Amino acid sequence: MNTIEVCFTPKLYSEIITKENFIVVMVDILRASTSICAAFANGVESIIPVASLDEARDYKNKGFLVASEREGVVLGFADFGNSAFNFMTEAVVGKTIAYSTTNGTQAIELAKNAEGLTVGSFSNLDALSKWLSVQQKNVVILCAGWKNKFNLEDSIFAGALCKELLKTNAFECNCDSAEAALDLWSIARNNPLEYIQKAAHRERLRKLGLDDVLEYTFELNTANVVPVLVDGVLRKV
Amino acid sequence: MNTIEVCFTPKLYSEIITKENFIVVMVDILRASTSICAAFANGVESIIPVASLDEARDYKNKGFLVASEREGVVLGFADFGNSAFNFMTEAVVGKTIAYSTTNGTQAIELAKNAEGLTVGSFSNLDALSKWLSVQQKNVVILCAGWKNKFNLEDSIFAGALCKELLKTNAFECNCDSAEAALDLWSIARNNPLEYIQKAAHRERLRKLGLDDVLEYTFELNTANVVPVLVDGVLRKV
Repeated sequence: MNTIEVCFTPKLYSEIITKENFIVVMVDILRASTSICAAFANGVESIIPVASLDEARDYKNKGFLVASEREGVVLGFADFGNSAFNFMTEAVVGKTIAYSTTNGTQAIELAKNAEGLTVGSFSNLDALSKWLSVQQKNVVILCAGWKNKFNLEDSIFAGALCKELLKTNAFECNCDSAEAALDLWSIARNNPLEYIQKAAHRERLRKLGLDDVLEYTFELNTANVVPVLVDGVLRKV
Repeated sequence: MNTIEVCFTPKLYSEIITKENFIVVMVDILRASTSICAAFANGVESIIPVASLDEARDYKNKGFLVASEREGVVLGFADFGNSAFNFMTEAVVGKTIAYSTTNGTQAIELAKNAEGLTVGSFSNLDALSKWLSVQQKNVVILCAGWKNKFNLEDSIFAGALCKELLKTNAFECNCDSAEAALDLWSIARNNPLEYIQKAAHRERLRKLGLDDVLEYTFELNTANVVPVLVDGVLRKV
């Protein structure tokens, strides 16, 4: 039986109980993980996650397409920002994109030395669960959170993924965080979009006028993709 | 309007949003905060929280009563351990106790420079809520957790306290953690003792034969006390 553990923020990643044979699922629902899944579903070839802005600028200078934002604001040198809608154009098909955001790519950086690293969102929940259920590895769900703080949107997704994985009978939860995530999802699942109205990040996006993508974000299984990090580059398996 | 913030583990304390005018409520339901409230309800004069075992030994050598355990096991030099039942004897009435435990006293150490520090448990929920509601300060609920990890028992108490404070209309939640704690409490509140059966720490206590105190732990309002830290010493206000 493999274990499922939930890590509510990157700051707690060094404390995880799971010590070996594990795959990390990076979750940044608003918005990196949702956008990465949208990108692959729309034909992007590969994504290079970069943690610092300097690196993102370097990739731009080398001729790559660059997606980059900080706190929801697209940076001047970037080709586009971090909304899933940005990746739904012909311009990205077959391309490699260098990608840097507030929380998500920094969580990837933190976990890049795990035995496996993938990306989870409501849009690829079904594809991801099926793939994880045949890997015979423990699963650590790493919520990117907001500046090292707990957030609701990543946590309810963690609960949704736990629930799908438990259904396969190949996993058991081994931490209180997973139990809590399951309980939060049990409250949110009937209407995640309604539930998330109380999330602090939802309000930040509203103020920035970036909340047009919310409906898409909480829709289940619109992207039949499983992005996996290999040699520092995300590709679809 | 004052704010309520929930910090799920000591590791996240440095990330709290609340920056000024706040009282920290230290929560370590299993078992320090419950035991501290029981001690005061049973006539203990004062409690000196000590973070290290060396300090606890020093207090023993100076003639103090010492309560000390690590991972549920009473240490050889200590007079007693960390169960609430340990403080329900005549021997402690009017005494000062030096107190060191796995998680609780280390959380107190971390927050000791806050403007105010008190201790919360299901046993003093009502007394604590009433006291906090007239302090005109923001409230940070600091869950001691288990070795820097999230735990269910502290988190549902955080939810219970949030709920009581919100009823006074003198507070608003300012973080997703508080919203999550409220939701977890909404599930747990009908039967906290039953809810907590799935908590990892509940299993640890069972293995150590220390779960006799659980029924007392989740009973509401058995201790009409508010312990407050002044000059490094906890006293009843």
